[in-house]
Order: sequence, then structure tokens, then C-alpha cells
Amino acid sequence: MRATDVIMKKRGIKGKPLEPLTKEEIKFIVDGYVKGEIPEYQISAFLMAVYFNGMNFQETAALTELMLHSGEVMDLDGLSGPFIDKHSTGGVGDKLSLPLAPIVAACGIQVPMMSGRALGHTGGTLDKLDSIEGYRTNLSKTEFRDFIKEDGFAMTGQTKEIVPADRLMYALRDVTATVESIPLITASILSKKIAEGSQALVFDVKCGKGAFMKSREDAEALAVSLVETAKAMGKKASALITNMNEPLGVMVGNFLEIEETIDILKGEGPKDARDLTISLAIEMLLLGEKAKDEAEAKALAEDAISSGKALELFMKNVDLQGGDSKKLMTQYKIRRSEFVEELKAEEDAYISSIDAFAVGMAGVNLGVGRNKTTDDVCADAGCEILKKAGDKVNKGDVIMKVYSKDAKSLEPAMKLLKEAITYSETAPENQDLIYKTIR
Amino acid sequence: MRATDVIMKKRGIKGKPLEPLTKEEIKFIVDGYVKGEIPEYQISAFLMAVYFNGMNFQETAALTELMLHSGEVMDLDGLSGPFIDKHSTGGVGDKLSLPLAPIVAACGIQVPMMSGRALGHTGGTLDKLDSIEGYRTNLSKTEFRDFIKEDGFAMTGQTKEIVPADRLMYALRDVTATVESIPLITASILSKKIAEGSQALVFDVKCGKGAFMKSREDAEALAVSLVETAKAMGKKASALITNMNEPLGVMVGNFLEIEETIDILKGEGPKDARDLTISLAIEMLLLGEKAKDEAEAKALAEDAISSGKALELFMKNVDLQGGDSKKLMTQYKIRRSEFVEELKAEEDAYISSIDAFAVGMAGVNLGVGRNKTTDDVCADAGCEILKKAGDKVNKGDVIMKVYSKDAKSLEPAMKLLKEAITYSETAPENQDLIYKTIR
Repeated sequence: MRATDVIMKKRGIKGKPLEPLTKEEIKFIVDGYVKGEIPEYQISAFLMAVYFNGMNFQETAALTELMLHSGEVMDLDGLSGPFIDKHSTGGVGDKLSLPLAPIVAACGIQVPMMSGRALGHTGGTLDKLDSIEGYRTNLSKTEFRDFIKEDGFAMTGQTKEIVPADRLMYALRDVTATVESIPLITASILSKKIAEGSQALVFDVKCGKGAFMKSREDAEALAVSLVETAKAMGKKASALITNMNEPLGVMVGNFLEIEETIDILKGEGPKDARDLTISLAIEMLLLGEKAKDEAEAKALAEDAISSGKALELFMKNVDLQGGDSKKLMTQYKIRRSEFVEELKAEEDAYISSIDAFAVGMAGVNLGVGRNKTTDDVCADAGCEILKKAGDKVNKGDVIMKVYSKDAKSLEPAMKLLKEAITYSETAPENQDLIYKTIR
Repeated sequence: MRATDVIMKKRGIKGKPLEPLTKEEIKFIVDGYVKGEIPEYQISAFLMAVYFNGMNFQETAALTELMLHSGEVMDLDGLSGPFIDKHSTGGVGDKLSLPLAPIVAACGIQVPMMSGRALGHTGGTLDKLDSIEGYRTNLSKTEFRDFIKEDGFAMTGQTKEIVPADRLMYALRDVTATVESIPLITASILSKKIAEGSQALVFDVKCGKGAFMKSREDAEALAVSLVETAKAMGKKASALITNMNEPLGVMVGNFLEIEETIDILKGEGPKDARDLTISLAIEMLLLGEKAKDEAEAKALAEDAISSGKALELFMKNVDLQGGDSKKLMTQYKIRRSEFVEELKAEEDAYISSIDAFAVGMAGVNLGVGRNKTTDDVCADAGCEILKKAGDKVNKGDVIMKVYSKDAKSLEPAMKLLKEAITYSETAPENQDLIYKTIR
């Protein structure tokens, strides 16, 4: 087999129908790349051909399987399971992994959660967890396993041993304009999620201004690809396509989002974040066969909150992973950055929309997120949103409290945030929170 | 400017119209590549994006211009001109550069001809010239210039100083399945032809079984691209799209094709090769403004032959470039490989077709051509075709005399040649020699 021939097959030959690659051909490319036997210039040409001609679900499943086995696969044998995780494609104010894990753990699901860090306008679960004093997100394999066993879930970063092929390939895609390819995104996401030990997966595919996928069409294509590829690999999966035009919830930050997590787990917090958490929990409980239908799953999830069980598991996790849950609660709603400014309404009107992307980019200025993977983030920076889209405001009302890592970063962030808000004379139409469910 | 952004622009952004690259963007890529500042994995992704999304004639002209200036451009200042060359996209039995140059030189055109070698099923002008004892195809720049001045034309190989960007890029395209791209083929051909000093160009775009372009559609696309890109660069150009289903002429080989060249220059030789030579000469004479219309150009070209002037210039070139024209004529129609076999008709029938590709591949076996650029060729190998498509044969009639580099290579070649011939009960339809002229 020659790499050139596999590239040509994916590229297509004029006058002949395009044929899907065989598992052997995909294996030749992935193994050859990881072993350094196929040079990057052939891989990048291959990736660009995939960008243009796509891959069917069987090809994507084969790619995922091969990437998955390029590294270590988490061994959760001996634990009870079922092991189910949720993956979000990333957004602004999306802290839902944090309340979701203890809620479903309280219902008997084990969640082996490996998360990422903030990049660009999107936040990162690890950065949020790191804002808890003492909390460790670099668990050893044994700790990860032990904590899942003891608490039903654990939350850590991806180790270097997990799917090295994805790290290699993502770095190459990033510099060759081949990131935006549904099958490549699918294989990247799925290979890591399956390597962490999940048997079933729920995907929260964000769609809109603050999401990677701006259009419904693209979001749906990714959601279908994730679910169908997972199924082609023998995993159960479902996906929600959800609205990411506005920030999710009322807190955008690191420690601020830990606070909102606690709010949700107390049965409080903003309705959108609470509702979506429950909806994702329903999907996980259905996949884990803990409920026979949505109504039963919903009742279980709500009970996990109202009984206090989910909050208890969350606090136990904080203590297990090196934090101090008592100390955390002494900081709850008190710990704030000293560099603060209020964003006030400029007119008597309805807030028509708050652009999630702009809020995310302001967050990068404030220290919530980062431009480059090597940038530091600030635990206490962020936005507390007091008025959301649909709310009526009078001129001078506080819309947001804005917390910064330092004094000088407030100004550019305030400028972005001011521009993020649009007003209207009449109440804007309610936007759907969940566009579609793919099962 | 970042290479990734240029790749992305050529790749296209979903939901936005595809925009042509600016000259600056193309310069950034070509210069960056030649200087080693842009890694090959970005160039190959770029080339694959060009494969899929093409380039308009302005982009292709900019690419050609930049590749052209990556190396040395032949300086023909002080010569009279006009400098016009012909380029063929390659075929089997295509020796027409050899009679064409002296014919148009006899009419006052100067031909700075730089040619290539045989590869795969297609022959190479340099290999044919090298079959003349003593003939040198590695002229110095001064010799090239001096011989054009003295004889109206000279024939040499491309030096390493000519368009190094094309050599680099072609090697990369070859291993990344990006060879078959009309704008990339155009830039590769044109950059070399313009670097050799041509002011106007005639293209013989071969089409059919023995050609690079199998379909009329592809051949026409390439012909139009070559002509329009040349025009966008301020060069005059025209193209003939010609039939390459059957070998051109009756000789396929190296020295054998030198003999057919002499035949054509004597006003003899096979009609198809003679007619196409005249047609190409007409185009060159029109571009060089040596005739006001086709009829006048045709009369000039025919007179160059019938007067003996063209043959005289050819023989003078042989002597100038290190050969011995007298000795050549003592070998004419006599010098043959001792490893010879006759291919005989298997039935009483018409020859319906002789597949040019199969004859070309048999030629590789015989030693006419080569599989790899490092293979040697044999000067005296080849096929002398006694019966062509349309001829009526009786069983046992000799269709071809087949000459090989050695005894053992005859058998596989004979097998290919036997399969190359199809018979029919009735005379096959005459095939067009020239499909279309693009001016």
C-alpha cells in the first residue's frame, strides 16, 4: 500500500465514483503517521481531501478506533458502571458538566470525566475546577478509578497517554486549515471520550454565535455524525443541539461558574442552565437504562437535586480531589476579584440579546479564558449577568458585574461587553434552549 | 500574513463565496516554500485545496510568474526573435518538436527549445536526440544562444537553474495526489516554457488513450487554461487539441523517431505526423506574424520542406550540437537493434485500432522509455508500424517490426502489443487528427 494511493482514493479520481476507504487503508495512514513512517505533507494532503470529500460513518468509526488505540485506554474494569459521560462542543457560561456529573452519579451512573481547558472565547471545565482552592485536576489513573468508585464520578485532564494520534493530528489540522471537518472533529472528540472509558455518550452540540458551529445545519451534521459514528463503534449515544447565541446561565468565569454549579445543585440558579442540566441528565439516565422513559428519568434527576444527594456528591468530590468543601462554602458568593466595574443599561428598553461570542472574548480580556494554550487564567475573573435577554431595564440599571484579573484589562472588556448588548423597544421572542434531540 | 489563512481562503469558508487569492498571497506561498519558510505540510494542504477549488487565470498567471522567477530566466536579448516554442503534453510516437523547429526556423522564427525525457508510456524529445551519436542535449547557456542565432533553433534539457520551484512542487505533488490539477499543470508547463525565453507558445494538448488527458473535456480545459493564462501574462498563445488514441506516425522509439523526423523533413513520412507538424507550424507562424492567414502560413511551412531548407537546418543543428549529420545519414533506415521480432496479423480483417497507451507501455519494456527517471533507455529500441488503424490486413501480414534492448524483454512487449491491436470486419471510421483549435 502507498500513502499516495490512499490520498488519491479519498481525493477521488475523475470519472469514477468516490469509494469509501477500507479499514486497512485508514489504519495504514493513522499507524504510518503515528509511527513517523508517513510524512506530515502526505497526512495534511489526506486531511484536506477528507475536508472536501468527507467520510461516511464507517470510515469515521474506523478512524476513531485507530486513533483511540494509538494510546492508552482507561481501564475501569471492576467498577460497577455503567460508564457514561457528556461532551459539550464548547460555549460561553457552559458549566453543565459540573452539576451534571454528581446528579447522574446520584442516580447510579459512573462518570469518568476528562475535560479540557479554556481556549479562545470558550471556557474550560478544568480551569473552573482549578479555581477551587486545592482542587487537583491531574489525577493519577488509580486516583481517577478510586474516586469514581467512591463518589460515582471524577474529573481530570486528559493525560498525554490518551490518544496521542489526536494531539498530533490536531496540531497539524490547526496549521493546514483542516479543523472544520465533521468526520475529523467527530474522530477527535469520540476517540478521547471512548479512551477515558465511557460506554455511552451524550453530546451537547452547541449552535449559534458563541459556538464552534454557527449554523443549525452544521450543528446537526456534527450531532448526527457523533451519534452515528459512536453507534457504528458499538456505543450507545444521543445528542442535544442547543442554543449558544447567549451565554448559558448567569455566571461566566471560573470560580463564578463553580458558584452557579452549587446553585443548580441546590435547586436554584438560572432556569436555562438548570433546565439544560436536567435534559442532559435525562439522556444519560436513558442510555444507562436507569429509567424507562423521559418522565421517569426527569423525576430521578430532580430527586437527586431536591434530596441534596447530588450536592453532597459534588462536595465529596471537592474533598476527594484535594479541595476543602467547607472552605469553599465560606467563599461562595463572597470571593470576588477586587477589579470590578458595573455595566449599566444605556436606555429604557428590553434587552434584545447578549452576544455569547463577545462575552467570551471579553472573558479572554478579563482573564477567564486564554488566547494561547500557554496563557494563565484568573480564578476570580468573569461576568455576573443580572439582566438577560428578554428582561426589561431602565437606563442605569446594572446589567452585569464585571470582574477582571487586573485594572487595565477592564476597559477593553467593558467595550466588548457594551457592544455585546442589543436593545429593543418590545420584548424579544423567546429563543428555544434545545433545538433538537438526536438519538 | 499566515500560510494557514491563505490555505483557508483557497479552501473556502462555509457560507461565504470563494474569493480568488491575491498576487501577494500567492507570492507569500511560493516564496515561502522556495525559501523553506513554509513547511511542506502546509504547501501540500494548499495544493490539495487548489486541486478541489481550482484557480482562475489571473491566479494561475500569478502562480506561473512567481514560479518562473524562482530561478533563472534565459536571456535571449540581442537575438532577432521572435522566440516561439511548441509544447506537447506528451504522447506515443510524438516526435513533432524535431521536424517542427527547423521548419519554422526556416520561416524566420527562433525556437529556444527545452525538452524533457521519457517517463511512463510517453516518449521524451531529449532521449530521441540522444540517440544521434555524439549529439549533446546539455548545452551551456552560451551554446544555446549561439546555436539559436546561427541555426534558428537549439534543443537542450532544462537546467537545474530553470524554475526550481516547479521541481520542488512537482515532487511534492507526485506524492500527495495533487498532480491532476489544471492550474497546477498549467503553471508547471508555462513557467518552464517562458523561462526558456519564449514570447509566444503553441500547445499541442494530446487527448485519448495514450495521453495524460483521457477525455475531451479535460483536454479542452487544459488547453483553454494554458492559452488564457499565457495571455494573462502578456504572451501570445494558441493550442491544438489532438488525437492520441493511436501512436502518432509509424515510428515509436528513439532513433526510429529521428528517422521519421528526417522523413517528414524530406516531405515524406506518414500523413498524420506530417499534417500535424504543418498544423503546429501554421500556429507558430501566425503567432510570429510571419503570415497573414492560415493559407499563407501553410504555404510557407510547406515551402520550408520542399525547398530542403528545413532539412538543411536540422542537419546543421545535428552538427552544431555535437553529432555528425553525414554519419547519421549512413545509419538512416539501417541502424537497428539486433533483438527483433515481427508482430503479425491474426486474422483477415481491418485493423480497427492500435492502443497508444499499450504501445507506450510496450515501449517501456523494449527500452524506449522508462518507469523511473533513473532508468536507462535504449537508442535503437522501438516499434516500426507497418499497418495502422484503417488498414486491411491478411492473416500473417506484418503489422509491426518490434526492436528490443535485449532478448528477454521482447516477450512481455509482444504480449502488450498483441493486446493493443483490435480488428474489425469493416473499415473503422476515420478519426479526427485535430479536435479543436483554441486561440
